[in-house]
Amino acid sequence: MREQLLAVEKAQAIEWRDGALYLLDQRLLPHRQVWLRFDTTAEVADAIRDLVVRGASAIGIACAYALVLGVRARLQAGGDWRGALEADVELLERSHPTTVYLSRAPQRMRERLARIKDGDDALALLEAEAVGIHVSDREANLAMAQLGMELIRRHQGNSQVLLTHGNAGALATGGFGTALGVIRAAHLEGLIEHVYVGETRPGLLGARLSAWELAGDGVSVSLNADAAAAHLMKAKGVTWVILGAERIAANGDVVNTIGTYQLAVNAMHHGVRLMVVAPSSTIDMGLESGEDILLEERDGRELLEVAGQVVAAEVHALNPAFDVTPADLVDYIVTEKGVVERPDSAKLAQLMCRKRLH
Amino acid sequence: MREQLLAVEKAQAIEWRDGALYLLDQRLLPHRQVWLRFDTTAEVADAIRDLVVRGASAIGIACAYALVLGVRARLQAGGDWRGALEADVELLERSHPTTVYLSRAPQRMRERLARIKDGDDALALLEAEAVGIHVSDREANLAMAQLGMELIRRHQGNSQVLLTHGNAGALATGGFGTALGVIRAAHLEGLIEHVYVGETRPGLLGARLSAWELAGDGVSVSLNADAAAAHLMKAKGVTWVILGAERIAANGDVVNTIGTYQLAVNAMHHGVRLMVVAPSSTIDMGLESGEDILLEERDGRELLEVAGQVVAAEVHALNPAFDVTPADLVDYIVTEKGVVERPDSAKLAQLMCRKRLH
Repeated sequence: MREQLLAVEKAQAIEWRDGALYLLDQRLLPHRQVWLRFDTTAEVADAIRDLVVRGASAIGIACAYALVLGVRARLQAGGDWRGALEADVELLERSHPTTVYLSRAPQRMRERLARIKDGDDALALLEAEAVGIHVSDREANLAMAQLGMELIRRHQGNSQVLLTHGNAGALATGGFGTALGVIRAAHLEGLIEHVYVGETRPGLLGARLSAWELAGDGVSVSLNADAAAAHLMKAKGVTWVILGAERIAANGDVVNTIGTYQLAVNAMHHGVRLMVVAPSSTIDMGLESGEDILLEERDGRELLEVAGQVVAAEVHALNPAFDVTPADLVDYIVTEKGVVERPDSAKLAQLMCRKRLH
Repeated sequence: MREQLLAVEKAQAIEWRDGALYLLDQRLLPHRQVWLRFDTTAEVADAIRDLVVRGASAIGIACAYALVLGVRARLQAGGDWRGALEADVELLERSHPTTVYLSRAPQRMRERLARIKDGDDALALLEAEAVGIHVSDREANLAMAQLGMELIRRHQGNSQVLLTHGNAGALATGGFGTALGVIRAAHLEGLIEHVYVGETRPGLLGARLSAWELAGDGVSVSLNADAAAAHLMKAKGVTWVILGAERIAANGDVVNTIGTYQLAVNAMHHGVRLMVVAPSSTIDMGLESGEDILLEERDGRELLEVAGQVVAAEVHALNPAFDVTPADLVDYIVTEKGVVERPDSAKLAQLMCRKRLH
């Protein structure tokens, strides 16, 4: 499966080349494919805030590379470059408060930094660490794609009808995607009849990105209004809802794109299985439950305006970016370390104790 | 309450003046308030198809006036004007297949027609009938507003937090609205803390019309993505979901704007009460259950484009206009004939036997 997925890889969003970070500007997709070049930490922080790059994994990788850019600048400036780098770490952490990966990837970078001795080539070592974070995210996604696909196969009578929401795709990660990675693998194995993609207002991540990724891979896909999901579950024989996660609490509560919770309640009501696909780095064992998290609210203009045009009355718009799905609505959490069925604190603790597979 | 509502009436969408029908073009709201004049049945049928006017009641009223326009033209043409009028009835029926009112209002017109004798002023009598349909819809809405408001008051501990979807407002009816009529009455009685309005993709009826109507009445209102509804139910203390209906089956199943079913499932999950407000003419005793209805699918371009701009990938878009909410998810159906709690076939049959109040 790993080789098959590598052979058909199409969509990518992050490149590290010639000492610079290149990001595919996701605000312009699917109409225009524009790569932007970044040479400073501050530019990358702005890009995260402006949604040039989004998705927990992709943001984490972008942050790791941004710190390489920071180290280079601090080294060139001379003096206490390690101390000065702290400002870069903080700048990146402030750019996207909900994403745990933001603290995880810089943490991995910081640990590497702590092991650097005088006389080492700090820049080269940290660049290698960032590339390692990127590569291991891709490898994790390939592992999850296989595990999730096998779950679908295990439950399969005939071809499956899936529903997804948001964009847990190649564009949100270092490659292949989490939820869309599973769907890609299942498609390669001939397990998929059709995939319904919710448009995912207000950012239209489903309409713009997931629909584009899946159609590009030749998957049978159609777009629907988010509010049509329950109707499709009942009328179209949906058997799986497959989603990513922005963050997972120690008890298995899932923080993900707004609308996930609503889908989870409806999946339970309709006997549709819910699979959350996310790298173990998304699991925050320090977060007891999803209730403890402060959810990000985005600018209400995302609801009031579409493509620069006002589409709504002049009222206050409430625009939570994420919601919390309680663990008891989740059938499976698929990570690169393995699959957790009906997640709870004990099962997630056990999962997180296992040695990493790669 | 009737007098209070009449005193503060603002939004209207249908006028019959100087022998012509005037419709407020709802496609241009809330940015521009443009009234269009109609002088022929065919023009009105086009207006219904193009969503100049929408909502079961408003369409029914527009059809009644359209038949007056038809009768006038047929009388002027001479010959078998009664026979020729059948083509107008069929034209109107084909313009919007889901709406039962379309067959109900012309049926009331046809019954009036059947009682017209030679020498009667057919045009004047049918015009009076159409005006009567319009007036009785307004009166029904005033009656429902009172009944629904009393339901809210009966359950009230403190001010209520409501959620609505679509536009069951003044714009969808002859005046005041059904669901929004109840909300207006509750607002006048000081029973409302806040109303959340789902934007209602893809037509944005909530964002464009309901938010505009409610804000215009001074109700505390905010707009949200449809997929945020469950999150709001949990996080914001929503106590009531209040909606209209396009059609209600004999067993209490409710056909309404896509997304209603999803809200109903989530309302049940969160212990939020669901109130459907619709005139008894919406109840189709010939329709055993909601499963028997053919649901209208609208053009997928409504999802792929917003305000003329392409916002999605080039994929197939599935765009059901309505969904079916099973009766067992409905707490109350409020009609002008009275309130049905936990609707079923027996209770609806009893309701429909009662003498009309007006």
